[in-house]
Amino acid sequence: MKHLVLVLLSVAWTAQVQAQDEWREKLDPKPTEVWKPVPVVSASPSFSLPPSDAIVLFDGKDLSQWVSARGGEAKWKVAEGAMTVQRNTGGIKTKREFGDVQLHIEWRTPSEATGEGQNRGNSGVYLQERYEVQVLDSYQNETYANGQAGALYKQHIPMVNASRKPGEWQSYDIVFTAPRFSEKGTLMVPAYVTVFHNGVLIHNHVPVMGPSVYQGLPVAEAHGKAAILLQDHGDAVSYRNIWVREL
Amino acid sequence: MKHLVLVLLSVAWTAQVQAQDEWREKLDPKPTEVWKPVPVVSASPSFSLPPSDAIVLFDGKDLSQWVSARGGEAKWKVAEGAMTVQRNTGGIKTKREFGDVQLHIEWRTPSEATGEGQNRGNSGVYLQERYEVQVLDSYQNETYANGQAGALYKQHIPMVNASRKPGEWQSYDIVFTAPRFSEKGTLMVPAYVTVFHNGVLIHNHVPVMGPSVYQGLPVAEAHGKAAILLQDHGDAVSYRNIWVREL
Amino acid sequence: MKHLVLVLLSVAWTAQVQAQDEWREKLDPKPTEVWKPVPVVSASPSFSLPPSDAIVLFDGKDLSQWVSARGGEAKWKVAEGAMTVQRNTGGIKTKREFGDVQLHIEWRTPSEATGEGQNRGNSGVYLQERYEVQVLDSYQNETYANGQAGALYKQHIPMVNASRKPGEWQSYDIVFTAPRFSEKGTLMVPAYVTVFHNGVLIHNHVPVMGPSVYQGLPVAEAHGKAAILLQDHGDAVSYRNIWVREL
Amino acid sequence: MKHLVLVLLSVAWTAQVQAQDEWREKLDPKPTEVWKPVPVVSASPSFSLPPSDAIVLFDGKDLSQWVSARGGEAKWKVAEGAMTVQRNTGGIKTKREFGDVQLHIEWRTPSEATGEGQNRGNSGVYLQERYEVQVLDSYQNETYANGQAGALYKQHIPMVNASRKPGEWQSYDIVFTAPRFSEKGTLMVPAYVTVFHNGVLIHNHVPVMGPSVYQGLPVAEAHGKAAILLQDHGDAVSYRNIWVREL
Repeated sequence: MKHLVLVLLSVAWTAQVQAQDEWREKLDPKPTEVWKPVPVVSASPSFSLPPSDAIVLFDGKDLSQWVSARGGEAKWKVAEGAMTVQRNTGGIKTKREFGDVQLHIEWRTPSEATGEGQNRGNSGVYLQERYEVQVLDSYQNETYANGQAGALYKQHIPMVNASRKPGEWQSYDIVFTAPRFSEKGTLMVPAYVTVFHNGVLIHNHVPVMGPSVYQGLPVAEAHGKAAILLQDHGDAVSYRNIWVREL
Repeated sequence: MKHLVLVLLSVAWTAQVQAQDEWREKLDPKPTEVWKPVPVVSASPSFSLPPSDAIVLFDGKDLSQWVSARGGEAKWKVAEGAMTVQRNTGGIKTKREFGDVQLHIEWRTPSEATGEGQNRGNSGVYLQERYEVQVLDSYQNETYANGQAGALYKQHIPMVNASRKPGEWQSYDIVFTAPRFSEKGTLMVPAYVTVFHNGVLIHNHVPVMGPSVYQGLPVAEAHGKAAILLQDHGDAVSYRNIWVREL
Repeated sequence: MKHLVLVLLSVAWTAQVQAQDEWREKLDPKPTEVWKPVPVVSASPSFSLPPSDAIVLFDGKDLSQWVSARGGEAKWKVAEGAMTVQRNTGGIKTKREFGDVQLHIEWRTPSEATGEGQNRGNSGVYLQERYEVQVLDSYQNETYANGQAGALYKQHIPMVNASRKPGEWQSYDIVFTAPRFSEKGTLMVPAYVTVFHNGVLIHNHVPVMGPSVYQGLPVAEAHGKAAILLQDHGDAVSYRNIWVREL
Repeated sequence: MKHLVLVLLSVAWTAQVQAQDEWREKLDPKPTEVWKPVPVVSASPSFSLPPSDAIVLFDGKDLSQWVSARGGEAKWKVAEGAMTVQRNTGGIKTKREFGDVQLHIEWRTPSEATGEGQNRGNSGVYLQERYEVQVLDSYQNETYANGQAGALYKQHIPMVNASRKPGEWQSYDIVFTAPRFSEKGTLMVPAYVTVFHNGVLIHNHVPVMGPSVYQGLPVAEAHGKAAILLQDHGDAVSYRNIWVREL
């Protein structure tokens, strides 16, 4: 039935479009050209380097862009172009605070997979210190779907499982639109997140109604710009090649 | 003032979160775990190969997935792993029809840039045969902003200009959500498009209110699945490495 | 700071708009006129009667548009222009099934408020048999916020509490956009709900990620059109003046 | 085919839901209750009076809330509980500036319909001084559809024509979400508008990509809070019963 409706509409459409074309052909195309503003350049000379307008947060050398989430210096280990969770030193977060961003980040769970479920290669990328994209070894490792790699933790299950084997580098490309509140503090526009895991779309502009929480439901709370935070969940997860573009 | 409001809200938030933490700590975390459905696997063994659940539309060898938009065989030229617009043979479109997709496509405008504005390296990627992501040599080539490379033609200006030089390969990574109509044919949910140009975000889930038109304004018309179409605009634009994932 | 940015942008805007006006003034206004399609008429001769294109689901006389949610005839009581939950006979649902709708419905909780929290004047309006707008006596009656009158049950807290006293008629004006799934069954566009309670906005196009559930988290499941269902929660809640417009 | 898919999915759904019910039944319902924040009260004692948290912009008596859009005092005529465009005195706008609002406004075009198309009973309600909901006598009066009563001028055609006869009072109930820009001035979230015309839904959360313009296409420009403005288009259109709630 629905199909029939679409067929009929489609026929109607063709007829209508042709009818439209007639009146359209008489229209001047100039009034629908928009010449300003002219988009600024964001050069991207290769697929492996950050674009020219990116802020590089980690280029393999040092933690100069990071502090400990507990205060003080970031204490994760830097070696061979990667930084690695130093167990029990706490998460680390960027010195800068961000609103709307495009974020590229690469991560790797330990090649010797020990533990099960949430206890295997667990870490996390927190946008604005609140909204977690889960990092986990989800290669043949069962856990709750809204807590596996790529999940917006306990809010959105990834569309597919694009996980690579432990020990292999993986990537997240994230578009984050910060939540917008009215002056009264009401959440008017939720945060929205789009995520590609290893180049595969796993979230398409999903609404995030509040901070990621382990227990209970998220509750929206007004806030401004905030840092990007990487979680210390006790596993030796590594990160590299981190850059962000402010939108 | 707004800043002050945010600061105050932020303070309130910290206090409230801490208060929340108290009641939260007593909650059982299990009821917010979701174990099913389990996301299916979409393996992505490397960054240069299509994911395992992709439909390859062009792998450099032949036009077996394509027909001419005018009917009959696709007549574009295939050589050296690329296919190139054969002037005046018309556009080509996929044999398959698609709804919601993730699309990867690479393109290159002629290395000898001749012509100006819309007359330099012009082609286009049409989603569902209606919604055009503009292909154009926009490297140091002035034209109207809503008609330059990456524009949702005459509907959305790209956020930045991420164009490479003519003769260099460029990429689009596109997430397309098809428009949804009510049974009465009313547009209930517009098409939404997210586009990365050479890895740089240029459209973030922008609404597309109707088919791309040269003259006048777009008018929404109900339709079902439809092909991906590449435009013959008279310039020898090349394409390669085209794949799509149905969402 | 943000304020300053806005002030500066605002100044820039004024300058730019004036600049724009110059080039705009030369443009022909005709090409941005759209003459078709012509919207059909939906006459609304008064504020107390349904519009001319509405389907009246209850006009105070009988339950001819309804069946029991358990199967068989609807067994609620009709008297004095209202229909009232007949305890333990189960919910009732419309014979027709709906997709996207505008729904008007009036309801009244018993004037003698007995019980507390969820046990006082509890019923519910389910869109598509799955998505509940809570009906409850929330006049000076504490309960969890995501379960009070007007809540999208356990998914969205109403923006304000617009409840009237028990025994008074109240209204919901609801705009419901049905969820859209891809052919693979993936939720591509969540259901969206806008609700006015007694004329006051309490939800503005909030996403509903899955069916309302008492325990655990909602899980999206693909479905087609479905009925409007009114819940029997054991309290003698009354309804009247119910109409719906298909969008 | 799609229908079949939905039927199959529906069967799967029933099975799955029942399966879900089993594990769900074991879950504690408490962790998905949210007790705070408690929504504040917005009392709405009757359907004809503004809610208790509304700002009354015109109650039939004077123009104390308004100024001329040209500067200086508002010069429209107040009589019999209505205010009427005083030709050539210019539009009027509120002294207050607004962000996100729910707006109720009533309007009436002259009972003697003179002129045709855009020249019959023309005025307009501008949100944030930029985004126009068209006011026009569109009762049996042909004009371009994106310029008739209720149109988001030259951006969105109303879903239906809910117009009453000239000389009769009509209402708009509008929900307006202000556009959100990034700190760089990029439009991150467009303005969204929902409109009921005489109680009939004519726009459901439609995106407004830039200010309403007579010529050419709208171009988004960052701005902060701004007034509500009523247009003087030379016709003696009247307004009454105007109130707004800040969201």
